[in-house]
Amino acid sequence: MSVVGRRSSDVGRKQTKMEGRKPREKCGVFGIYGPGLNVARLTYYGIFALQHRGQESAGIAILDGDKIHVQKGMGLVSEVFGNSDLDKLQGRAAIGHVRYSTTGASQLVNAQPLVFRYAGGMLGLAHNGNITNVHELHQRLTSSGAIFQSTTDSEIIVNLLARYSQASFSMEEAVIRCMQDLEGAYSLVILTEKSLFAVRDAYGFRPLCLGVLNGNYVVASESCALDTIGASFLRDVTPGEIVTINEHGLTSTQGVSCQRRAHCIFEYIYFARPDSNIDGFNVKKVRREMGRRLAQEYPVKVDLVIPVPDSGTSAALGYAEASGISFEEGLMKNRYVGRTFIQPCQEMRDVGVRLKLNPVRELLAGKRIVLIDDSLVRGTTSKKIVGMLRECGAREIHLCLSSPPVAHACYYGIDTSNEKELLAAQMSLEEIRQRITVDGLHYLSLNSLLDIFDGKKDSFCTACYSGDYPIALESAEIDRTKKLEF
Amino acid sequence: MSVVGRRSSDVGRKQTKMEGRKPREKCGVFGIYGPGLNVARLTYYGIFALQHRGQESAGIAILDGDKIHVQKGMGLVSEVFGNSDLDKLQGRAAIGHVRYSTTGASQLVNAQPLVFRYAGGMLGLAHNGNITNVHELHQRLTSSGAIFQSTTDSEIIVNLLARYSQASFSMEEAVIRCMQDLEGAYSLVILTEKSLFAVRDAYGFRPLCLGVLNGNYVVASESCALDTIGASFLRDVTPGEIVTINEHGLTSTQGVSCQRRAHCIFEYIYFARPDSNIDGFNVKKVRREMGRRLAQEYPVKVDLVIPVPDSGTSAALGYAEASGISFEEGLMKNRYVGRTFIQPCQEMRDVGVRLKLNPVRELLAGKRIVLIDDSLVRGTTSKKIVGMLRECGAREIHLCLSSPPVAHACYYGIDTSNEKELLAAQMSLEEIRQRITVDGLHYLSLNSLLDIFDGKKDSFCTACYSGDYPIALESAEIDRTKKLEF
Amino acid sequence: MSVVGRRSSDVGRKQTKMEGRKPREKCGVFGIYGPGLNVARLTYYGIFALQHRGQESAGIAILDGDKIHVQKGMGLVSEVFGNSDLDKLQGRAAIGHVRYSTTGASQLVNAQPLVFRYAGGMLGLAHNGNITNVHELHQRLTSSGAIFQSTTDSEIIVNLLARYSQASFSMEEAVIRCMQDLEGAYSLVILTEKSLFAVRDAYGFRPLCLGVLNGNYVVASESCALDTIGASFLRDVTPGEIVTINEHGLTSTQGVSCQRRAHCIFEYIYFARPDSNIDGFNVKKVRREMGRRLAQEYPVKVDLVIPVPDSGTSAALGYAEASGISFEEGLMKNRYVGRTFIQPCQEMRDVGVRLKLNPVRELLAGKRIVLIDDSLVRGTTSKKIVGMLRECGAREIHLCLSSPPVAHACYYGIDTSNEKELLAAQMSLEEIRQRITVDGLHYLSLNSLLDIFDGKKDSFCTACYSGDYPIALESAEIDRTKKLEF
Amino acid sequence: MSVVGRRSSDVGRKQTKMEGRKPREKCGVFGIYGPGLNVARLTYYGIFALQHRGQESAGIAILDGDKIHVQKGMGLVSEVFGNSDLDKLQGRAAIGHVRYSTTGASQLVNAQPLVFRYAGGMLGLAHNGNITNVHELHQRLTSSGAIFQSTTDSEIIVNLLARYSQASFSMEEAVIRCMQDLEGAYSLVILTEKSLFAVRDAYGFRPLCLGVLNGNYVVASESCALDTIGASFLRDVTPGEIVTINEHGLTSTQGVSCQRRAHCIFEYIYFARPDSNIDGFNVKKVRREMGRRLAQEYPVKVDLVIPVPDSGTSAALGYAEASGISFEEGLMKNRYVGRTFIQPCQEMRDVGVRLKLNPVRELLAGKRIVLIDDSLVRGTTSKKIVGMLRECGAREIHLCLSSPPVAHACYYGIDTSNEKELLAAQMSLEEIRQRITVDGLHYLSLNSLLDIFDGKKDSFCTACYSGDYPIALESAEIDRTKKLEF
Repeated sequence: MSVVGRRSSDVGRKQTKMEGRKPREKCGVFGIYGPGLNVARLTYYGIFALQHRGQESAGIAILDGDKIHVQKGMGLVSEVFGNSDLDKLQGRAAIGHVRYSTTGASQLVNAQPLVFRYAGGMLGLAHNGNITNVHELHQRLTSSGAIFQSTTDSEIIVNLLARYSQASFSMEEAVIRCMQDLEGAYSLVILTEKSLFAVRDAYGFRPLCLGVLNGNYVVASESCALDTIGASFLRDVTPGEIVTINEHGLTSTQGVSCQRRAHCIFEYIYFARPDSNIDGFNVKKVRREMGRRLAQEYPVKVDLVIPVPDSGTSAALGYAEASGISFEEGLMKNRYVGRTFIQPCQEMRDVGVRLKLNPVRELLAGKRIVLIDDSLVRGTTSKKIVGMLRECGAREIHLCLSSPPVAHACYYGIDTSNEKELLAAQMSLEEIRQRITVDGLHYLSLNSLLDIFDGKKDSFCTACYSGDYPIALESAEIDRTKKLEF
Repeated sequence: MSVVGRRSSDVGRKQTKMEGRKPREKCGVFGIYGPGLNVARLTYYGIFALQHRGQESAGIAILDGDKIHVQKGMGLVSEVFGNSDLDKLQGRAAIGHVRYSTTGASQLVNAQPLVFRYAGGMLGLAHNGNITNVHELHQRLTSSGAIFQSTTDSEIIVNLLARYSQASFSMEEAVIRCMQDLEGAYSLVILTEKSLFAVRDAYGFRPLCLGVLNGNYVVASESCALDTIGASFLRDVTPGEIVTINEHGLTSTQGVSCQRRAHCIFEYIYFARPDSNIDGFNVKKVRREMGRRLAQEYPVKVDLVIPVPDSGTSAALGYAEASGISFEEGLMKNRYVGRTFIQPCQEMRDVGVRLKLNPVRELLAGKRIVLIDDSLVRGTTSKKIVGMLRECGAREIHLCLSSPPVAHACYYGIDTSNEKELLAAQMSLEEIRQRITVDGLHYLSLNSLLDIFDGKKDSFCTACYSGDYPIALESAEIDRTKKLEF
Repeated sequence: MSVVGRRSSDVGRKQTKMEGRKPREKCGVFGIYGPGLNVARLTYYGIFALQHRGQESAGIAILDGDKIHVQKGMGLVSEVFGNSDLDKLQGRAAIGHVRYSTTGASQLVNAQPLVFRYAGGMLGLAHNGNITNVHELHQRLTSSGAIFQSTTDSEIIVNLLARYSQASFSMEEAVIRCMQDLEGAYSLVILTEKSLFAVRDAYGFRPLCLGVLNGNYVVASESCALDTIGASFLRDVTPGEIVTINEHGLTSTQGVSCQRRAHCIFEYIYFARPDSNIDGFNVKKVRREMGRRLAQEYPVKVDLVIPVPDSGTSAALGYAEASGISFEEGLMKNRYVGRTFIQPCQEMRDVGVRLKLNPVRELLAGKRIVLIDDSLVRGTTSKKIVGMLRECGAREIHLCLSSPPVAHACYYGIDTSNEKELLAAQMSLEEIRQRITVDGLHYLSLNSLLDIFDGKKDSFCTACYSGDYPIALESAEIDRTKKLEF
Repeated sequence: MSVVGRRSSDVGRKQTKMEGRKPREKCGVFGIYGPGLNVARLTYYGIFALQHRGQESAGIAILDGDKIHVQKGMGLVSEVFGNSDLDKLQGRAAIGHVRYSTTGASQLVNAQPLVFRYAGGMLGLAHNGNITNVHELHQRLTSSGAIFQSTTDSEIIVNLLARYSQASFSMEEAVIRCMQDLEGAYSLVILTEKSLFAVRDAYGFRPLCLGVLNGNYVVASESCALDTIGASFLRDVTPGEIVTINEHGLTSTQGVSCQRRAHCIFEYIYFARPDSNIDGFNVKKVRREMGRRLAQEYPVKVDLVIPVPDSGTSAALGYAEASGISFEEGLMKNRYVGRTFIQPCQEMRDVGVRLKLNPVRELLAGKRIVLIDDSLVRGTTSKKIVGMLRECGAREIHLCLSSPPVAHACYYGIDTSNEKELLAAQMSLEEIRQRITVDGLHYLSLNSLLDIFDGKKDSFCTACYSGDYPIALESAEIDRTKKLEF
């Protein structure tokens, strides 16, 4: 750990407001129980494979004897950990976390895993999701003397666990009590002095799966993390399930019963890595199928199918396949655009999009194009892309989106804009088409989307499209910002 | 705040074990209530003036509206804060802290001020001292569900405050309750959404004083911090007192009664800055008087009085004055030795002391010398200094120490060695003299030392010399390491 | 510019030897003459668009009055420059450089632009290429007293310019003299107190093109840099040409005559960005055509065409188009793999390739595959990829490469392996096939490749395939390492 | 060497203009020829002991086989080198340098040692001093094609060496030729592939001495560096001497004859470390003697002798001794003030001096004081100190300076202010006294100062006091700034 620059601040960086920003996943979690394995490095590679789920902070907690050590920091996994850090982290089990805050509070104090001492010893926790009755729980806890050092709902969970476990419950019982209190979305990995726990809420909002590596159990938000470390996929953790892993092997308990499955459908559309399998479906296959269905719903006579890379590529290939129209990478993405990149100043704002995406002029001149993207937020970026394509001589441009319009805010762990900022909640299809200045605009219908999932249509949360929220919200919930920061 | 390297780790740096290390102060605290003033910068300069009380971490918490923001980090004040950080910290009141851990846990999570949310809002706390009944309190708190994220006793205080204040007590009442629970040494500054509190334990172990800057109140561990920001010294906070400062001005409450004053005498001997006045005595004057009394107790016929800089300089001047023997700076100190300095490897170990102290050969050849230092720990460094002096031709060397032998460990906020490592607890005077290879060795007697403080002899804690502990220790106390880290 | 860590060392980092590493481009250059424009930011975005041509160091030199200021550093463009750095760089013309050393000497001292004072004032130079008679020139210069502070051949050019310009030649004449001395490959941008020069060697090995932005001239290694800053492409700088840009506009001089064009064909195959146009051909179109011709040369009955991303994607699309076989992104690339990434240790070496590329199991099971990549170096990575595909159930795998086998080292600015390390120089096609464990292996023929470039077949350097070197090499040339470092 | 932040810039930090800044030494040099020794670490400790001679940049060059490696950087020795850096620097001889630029150009490119390749191989050079005929030499060199990458006169020396050595001279002959060309002040250490050279100009302006460590020769600016690494002092290098050290031992050549010794007298007054011996005199002893002579020249009836720490301490002790008046450390210096410290903003400017120096109120009230400092520049700081002392109740204050008034600029390696900024060149003694608001003011007379140096009065350069410049200046010299930066 280098001496310079080690500091914690809640003054925060001013969050760069990116226009037309995509919804963002909150977090990714990983856990491994592997005496004899190099669990620190395996966790490093595990959360590295989950980096797309959160680029703001990263952390690893490791169980060594009866102590849990933790290292965490702001930035990418590769920035937070050096070789010597991993060498120092030795133990028999570990959990890891990558995080994207959904609020302005990009602070080290909010980085996970949270590690603390309680009556029963030490405990580490990593959380992906969003607790919806956080106000009620916060009040209940502080009124009995609890203090909070972060602004995350995860610290609520941690306090509940400490309270229940202290009342002579086993940790498993404490987790069950805790699940009974919690409303909302949560996929948790918990590390105690004895065991690794994997916990998924009663609806299965956020993904969580189980794998095995040379007889040692591994849990991860997505199966790509299992692949990366060479582990085999076993199964998804089921809604309401508590998986306990320790020296006696793996046991499963139903913590709360599952009344309704509500897997987040946005994982398939945008968040998850294409090579992951989630709750029975391969993400890449689903995306390609979205493209095929787009071609059926919106057949159009054009010369080229062009994706907005990388999010639109799979669907564009599906569209091209189903329509027989030629697929072409007409937009070149600069792979070096990262967090530390200097944004163009006002006077050269046009440089902004071109830095990230440059159209390949030679391919576009005089062509009719169907442009495929996964979703549309404020439309600003799309409009600029369309402008660049026209400047290169494209004479007809249709925009097809592989998802229905997002018209409702998410309260289950996705960072969407507020409802009043959502384009689809404010404008008609025709108004949006005009704003983006395309010749045609089409969103994949919700029915088509759900049809992809065979007989499992009812297993998904589609609240952001349909407004059908699986869990009723606290009244205080209306003001979403307040809620998350309590 | 730079992006790279912001991380928190409890894996820790391997604490460099310095041979013959001096006892170390735990912390320094500072607080200011100054609407209209630049409280962040004033606090920066305040803790900068207290830097000698802790070089491991630094932090500032500031009250802005009803939010308390905090920035803290590992390292010196000048390393933790940049200009832009201070510009961002705006508010009407602030507290600051510098820290030296007494255990191996040099971690960001242990840096102060601690800032948290509780039922009553937000609260920040900075602590100098050491709670002695920490085990009992820790058990009481965790058994009712409390969790601990640091390994400091300060988090115990914070939890007590939260619990008492939630029970419909005012914060002042909560502080009183808290003081009734706490045993040991503590000087606290507390920042709430309304007020700044300065609290000192019933014995007054650690210093804490009060000043005023243009009508605004300031509190600090030492008066030098008041001088530095241009504030005038008002008075010391008295043992057991709670000073409350807010928009209504300053009020004082006796939180617990003071049965016995027990100011730490080591502050005068070594820790405090010479320009500070503590509990009625100027540190520099006390040190010079120690030298005078040394000359009376140990008159010796030599050519030169030479201090070990900087700790022995004041006493050496006193010795020279009283004895009439010439004072000479015979050892040159390299002012660039700092934390990041590369320690000499095994093969050039001799370089070690010479890097820090180089004897001025021309002054020493053929001379008889009395060498003055403030205290002796393991004697290793002293022995090397003596060797260097002899190599330069000094023909007689006497070592005089301006304090009695430290024979007992401190439990009230000073980081002494364990009792079994203390030289004076293990060897006779003659054995020590032989080990250090000096011609004469003398410690200032406890009586002489106390005589300096006129009619206030009984106001000091002399436990490290006499073994007379003002507060009985928990039985668990015996194993001191366990205690501090619980 | 932060104070900590600014240092220069030639002790160097141990160059990570990546197995099966691809050939690497040496450098990218950029220049702009734009009084009134923010030339520092435009140069920043220009070299940012050329980042793929060198990730080791970056630099910008700017002309302000009659001073040339320079800032350069190790790392990516976004790491070397902060916002405040760009704010400080003000002027009317600028040049920029990104660099990949071809030797072990990754040193700040070798970063460009080189800026120096000579008899005529100040001069800055950025160089892409490789001088082949460097030994002779080095000896000539040192024997008349020249000193060299870097290990780059660019410093040779700089010394020649200084010597010729001092002999009462104009800078343009000095450049001509210099070109007469230099053998090998070079595309230069030169900044003097009056003018910006763009210079290309007599063969046109390395690319260099000219654009215009609101009446101001811009030069860049590739047209994508012009696109990025919103400049229009004018034309390529021709072999042997000197373009002079200053307050009087643009003038062109033929510095040396062009006997033979020898554009580097590898630019189209691998180095250049797909959206660039170089010497009359669009890179992406050429790559797609390579794929089509591969399909003609090696028609095979399989189920899927799968690219090795990103280098094989365009050719794979061409193959799929020509063959009618379905294109599928069967290998998922982790976009977060960067320079600071921790390489897997020996015990988890298998993790290595999977971190970067993960096969999408669901798409591959039971399938026959043609895998498309651009070239093959040592074959180690390809073999691992093939292994992963088989593990996922692929039952037949053919590997098609969109270039002929690289059998000869490059001396004109590309960092290939030594000849004895080149797979194709050592093994037969069948031996390579067996080593990689594929069912079929095919390289695009040189004839097919050249046919893509219509009537311009003879305009290219194909030395790395054919051994036909456009410039005879110094005898000392044999030991290539010596040569480059002199 | 960390990857982030390694960059070179000539844009520079804005040089903080400190009011009343003291003159500054330009540089310190060190060299060791020690096969079998850890020459990198010994050089590290050597330049660490010379850190007071330059805090802006540091560097070490080391001879390994026939290569010379160099590492240098901006900042303190302890900031530039880490343990792993030193481990990588292995070899049989090394030179080191610390630097304080005398101009605004605080740039990495100007850091030393300079290392370069020339016709004869590799060469490293470290320089302390200032060449006065730099314009003439610069013109001569550039007119024959030389280029300059730094703005230091040291690069002139390097080019001369390269030119002479290439003309079939031995390096020793080249050094002699070079010395015949150079005018001004220079103490050089030069490292070639065979030998270590120590060279001192014909006047001996800047110090340079020779030591021995276990039979290996060491050279250093000051003897304190020899002491620190445990080497014995042999002798000073004499004016005009070239010392050559290699496998055949040590040989001495008179490079140019010495017509007149002109050792810089300011070394004794301010720059050098008190524990150093320079040209036959111990610095500390000289300083104490200055104080004694001050007491004779300016006897005054006061209560206390108080030094401005640290520069006035030795003289104050001498004054106290000669006068019999009590010495007291009445001003406390904060040892944590360093380069990264945040300067107080306008509104709290008074904090500025108090941060660095705090008067000990208890000692001063009602007292008459003689304040001792080494010199006076603009008087601003002194005036503030006097103000603080009066505020503490001092009722009479005399200021005595242990040097004559500085009335002339230095051209031989000291960074004085321009003549028109020098207080003593502009105002009468009485005017200065009034400005500083003291009751009395006295400068040590030049005669008294010179008398200290027994029969060697004529061996010193006193130009800054007397205007008697040992070397006539170039006419261009008048504009000193131009000269140094050429």
